[in-house]
Amino acid sequence: MGILVVGSVALDSVETPFGKADNVLGGSATYFSTAASYFTDVSLVAVIGEDFPDEHINFLKEKGVDTNGLQKIAGKTFRWQGRYEYDLNEAHTIATHLNVFKKFKPHIPAVYTKSPYVFLANIDPEIQLNVLEQVKKPKFVACDTMNFWIEGKPDALKGLLSKVDLFVLNEGEAREFAKEPNLVKAAKKILAYGPKTVIIKRGEYGALMFNGGSIFSAPAYPLESVFDPTGAGDSFAGGLIGYLANIDNTNESNIRQAIIFGSVMASFNVEDFSLNRMRTLTLKEIYDRYRKFKQLTHFEDIS
Amino acid sequence: MGILVVGSVALDSVETPFGKADNVLGGSATYFSTAASYFTDVSLVAVIGEDFPDEHINFLKEKGVDTNGLQKIAGKTFRWQGRYEYDLNEAHTIATHLNVFKKFKPHIPAVYTKSPYVFLANIDPEIQLNVLEQVKKPKFVACDTMNFWIEGKPDALKGLLSKVDLFVLNEGEAREFAKEPNLVKAAKKILAYGPKTVIIKRGEYGALMFNGGSIFSAPAYPLESVFDPTGAGDSFAGGLIGYLANIDNTNESNIRQAIIFGSVMASFNVEDFSLNRMRTLTLKEIYDRYRKFKQLTHFEDIS
Repeated sequence: MGILVVGSVALDSVETPFGKADNVLGGSATYFSTAASYFTDVSLVAVIGEDFPDEHINFLKEKGVDTNGLQKIAGKTFRWQGRYEYDLNEAHTIATHLNVFKKFKPHIPAVYTKSPYVFLANIDPEIQLNVLEQVKKPKFVACDTMNFWIEGKPDALKGLLSKVDLFVLNEGEAREFAKEPNLVKAAKKILAYGPKTVIIKRGEYGALMFNGGSIFSAPAYPLESVFDPTGAGDSFAGGLIGYLANIDNTNESNIRQAIIFGSVMASFNVEDFSLNRMRTLTLKEIYDRYRKFKQLTHFEDIS
Repeated sequence: MGILVVGSVALDSVETPFGKADNVLGGSATYFSTAASYFTDVSLVAVIGEDFPDEHINFLKEKGVDTNGLQKIAGKTFRWQGRYEYDLNEAHTIATHLNVFKKFKPHIPAVYTKSPYVFLANIDPEIQLNVLEQVKKPKFVACDTMNFWIEGKPDALKGLLSKVDLFVLNEGEAREFAKEPNLVKAAKKILAYGPKTVIIKRGEYGALMFNGGSIFSAPAYPLESVFDPTGAGDSFAGGLIGYLANIDNTNESNIRQAIIFGSVMASFNVEDFSLNRMRTLTLKEIYDRYRKFKQLTHFEDIS
């Protein structure tokens, strides 16, 4: 089944202890779409400026992403400039230039309004709600957010959560949103806002899924060379929702597998700057790494 | 098979956001012995002062710990005073009074020198080496350390590591010791000092095992109420080495299971102050939680 994703497409400038990349392809919806494209059809709704290079659109098209919902308007593309220290878990924002993103009012093309799977990447929760009003009874809706909206628009976010099936957010964001240092208690409070499933991303420590009374702990893949963590969370979401849409079944067993596919996509993404690793990544490599996750976590039962 | 453990026995004063406990039973060897006692015979070598309450010795005896190696000498027992904030991963030391621990020169009683399993809890690596010189060809030696020795006696520590089978240390300590921010690379450097297996403890994020080219990732148990993290690492080591000594087989499959038993013991330990949870903990509860770890980490293979 197909996925509609609404979010940002950006040009990033990133510096890490291992190098730097200027004006490279970025944005939450870009990372999500590319990761999800390995599993299913993806339709992307986002805004770009007149300066956005055609080669990036061609890259997305080559990945099979439907870019007809990409609106080009007057002005410059959204730009983010950031830096990571050796502790790659935390991004230090140097500059954010919203540019055309300030005027982003997503219009969902009629052909996309029947998308069975919807992912609302990290944008203003009021815009996320507006997108949901435009789509017709999707089977499964997932969303992301960030501390900026948790602090600035908590009520809109809670309104949104009453309408989504799955909510992904970072560990620190979960604690802040629930005003609760204990992560299990925080997840319970967030589940009470409506989503059936909450997935808490923990960077290099993996992810925790809370689904009703059940908890699943997934590790991150231990990598020897992490070059650029930008987009890891969105690649995770892309693998996760991409896999679920592909098998079109969101029971817990499938969500657990989907989390591993999300972790696989995130682990590849951080191996190079921007989306460069995705330029050569094959489905075989993805399946091989899934099997390595199985080895990584395996231990025998006791009788 | 039996275990010899050498380390500290202490009286702790601990404050957490959830309460406080003054002058309660603590110490690395105490936590280790108690956790290991659920799996096998444990002989404890440590030093206490004249003020050490008999009730604590009786507690250890009731757990089946052989306390004949507990040397009582003139002076006061080792005391540690610490505090934890809501981020329970980090202990803030308020005061350390070594007292009788300053004069600790472990003499291993003849009957213990043939112990097949040896755990050298966190003490001066020169003392750890001295203990190893006193024991006769143990089958399996494991040790712990701390940043104080990594910074103060790195060469003695490296000398020790050439003689041990398994080394457990914290994540931050591993990075500091190897002078390497990437944990996989850090583990490789530490393995090169000699131990066949390195286990890196990550607090609420679990543990990573490096054994030759193989990696095992174990989660921590997601708890709703963590009261006092003191002794979690030593309880982990106690469950780990206790299980290995019990089955007397240290192949990787067993080490993986042992890490889960260690994680189980750590998860119970933090549910109450001092060793209080261990006063009522049963073997059935331990096995039940092991099975919960299996559910927590389970995901289906792909074909």
